[in-house]
Amino acid sequence: MITDIKVDTSQYMFAMEMAVRDYELDYQGIVNNANYLHYLEHTRHEFCRQHGITFAEMHRRGLDPVLSHVEISYRTPLRSDDTFVSCLSMRRRGPKFEFIQDIYRADGEPVIKATITVACLENGRLSRGDTLAEAVGL
Amino acid sequence: MITDIKVDTSQYMFAMEMAVRDYELDYQGIVNNANYLHYLEHTRHEFCRQHGITFAEMHRRGLDPVLSHVEISYRTPLRSDDTFVSCLSMRRRGPKFEFIQDIYRADGEPVIKATITVACLENGRLSRGDTLAEAVGL
Amino acid sequence: MITDIKVDTSQYMFAMEMAVRDYELDYQGIVNNANYLHYLEHTRHEFCRQHGITFAEMHRRGLDPVLSHVEISYRTPLRSDDTFVSCLSMRRRGPKFEFIQDIYRADGEPVIKATITVACLENGRLSRGDTLAEAVGL
Amino acid sequence: MITDIKVDTSQYMFAMEMAVRDYELDYQGIVNNANYLHYLEHTRHEFCRQHGITFAEMHRRGLDPVLSHVEISYRTPLRSDDTFVSCLSMRRRGPKFEFIQDIYRADGEPVIKATITVACLENGRLSRGDTLAEAVGL
Repeated sequence: MITDIKVDTSQYMFAMEMAVRDYELDYQGIVNNANYLHYLEHTRHEFCRQHGITFAEMHRRGLDPVLSHVEISYRTPLRSDDTFVSCLSMRRRGPKFEFIQDIYRADGEPVIKATITVACLENGRLSRGDTLAEAVGL
Repeated sequence: MITDIKVDTSQYMFAMEMAVRDYELDYQGIVNNANYLHYLEHTRHEFCRQHGITFAEMHRRGLDPVLSHVEISYRTPLRSDDTFVSCLSMRRRGPKFEFIQDIYRADGEPVIKATITVACLENGRLSRGDTLAEAVGL
Repeated sequence: MITDIKVDTSQYMFAMEMAVRDYELDYQGIVNNANYLHYLEHTRHEFCRQHGITFAEMHRRGLDPVLSHVEISYRTPLRSDDTFVSCLSMRRRGPKFEFIQDIYRADGEPVIKATITVACLENGRLSRGDTLAEAVGL
Repeated sequence: MITDIKVDTSQYMFAMEMAVRDYELDYQGIVNNANYLHYLEHTRHEFCRQHGITFAEMHRRGLDPVLSHVEISYRTPLRSDDTFVSCLSMRRRGPKFEFIQDIYRADGEPVIKATITVACLENGRLSRGDTLAEAVGL
């Protein structure tokens, strides 16, 4: 479906292609700012799934990664018909995980640059998140 | 990505594969009822795009399809990790369009059965929607 | 905040005032069709809360009301700055509950007319929903 | 409805009470991280409305404030039945606007601390946003 992606994703640990869905647009005709957090969450979940661990399964085992801090720079808004590449890298940062998550439009234009910090709750208490770290090879 | 779909889509005019995204789940662990309307809208838009007409382009030309009536039967809720097939057929119904839109889980289980009636506004007034009809070959 | 509501709600069991939030609008400048299901769900939950029973508490006790059928007639779209009244009546219908849910713009103009059928799951199995029925006095 | 708010909002320019709606919860039973951006956007729009200027009206006049940068610290997640106070202060920052936006649960517990930077587009080009500045008295 997406035929001509001009994004170099080699510096990231994971990348996936997505397309804007029209219900994500707001009255300005651009993707509403909150939906980028949906894109970013979905990308983290797909990254983990690729490593054989799902958030649903973690949740059933009492392990809940939750957002601790979010920093997003908005560069170019996505519009109807846009396809894009959502890129991710991840590292441990003390007891937390830091995700570098950048989104590029298919033509290579940067859309957002984000740093997402995630803490792992185990049965409601802050944990070191070793289950998650091992699953993704950190 | 989706390897094993057991859905016969031959009776429909269009079908597309989708996957549940975890942010679409609610506190019951199932896809929130409102998100099915998102799936259905996205499917209608993709169907039109396949026929070379986008809702964004129609909007720029003063043509706005809007929902007039929705009837949905909920059969089996979608959950995390589920993939599904969103199927669509469409016919004219007087001055309106009727979409038959059914969603099946990848294993063939019916998820929802929906009938969506759409009216076409042209510069804010009800029209017969000939532009849309011609584009999709009705 | 809402100063001049011209809606007669006397035929309903419950009514609440709400206002459009701009993030609920889509690229057409009207409230996206899926958001009405959010309004309707929120109204059902507030109706139950008024009767001393919350969906969160029901969920903790293994009782999950889920949508079985939805029928919505869209009359007049809501726009930015609109305030509206969400009205609800409810009755038992065999093992299920039927909610009549109508939304009116503050000036009295009908926005949607909906009939929502809800089934009650108890520990994942269909139940008669007596807990819910007693709580709301049916 | 909200009877017992223990939040001192005197250091902010604006504050409004809101309540969690259950459809905003995700599978973890907490408000999904993206919905806080909805709360923050709605609060900015209500703040402006209080000053007699709406985003819909600005949009009609070709003026579109858009997010440039977001920084959010997540402290305590909101859950079903929670009510909260969304507080806002705003200042000019070169050609942009900086909003300090903090959310507190009704019992005073901090929920998020956010700094939102907004740029003003005028007919698609970056402007100094004087219309917005004058309206809110900056």
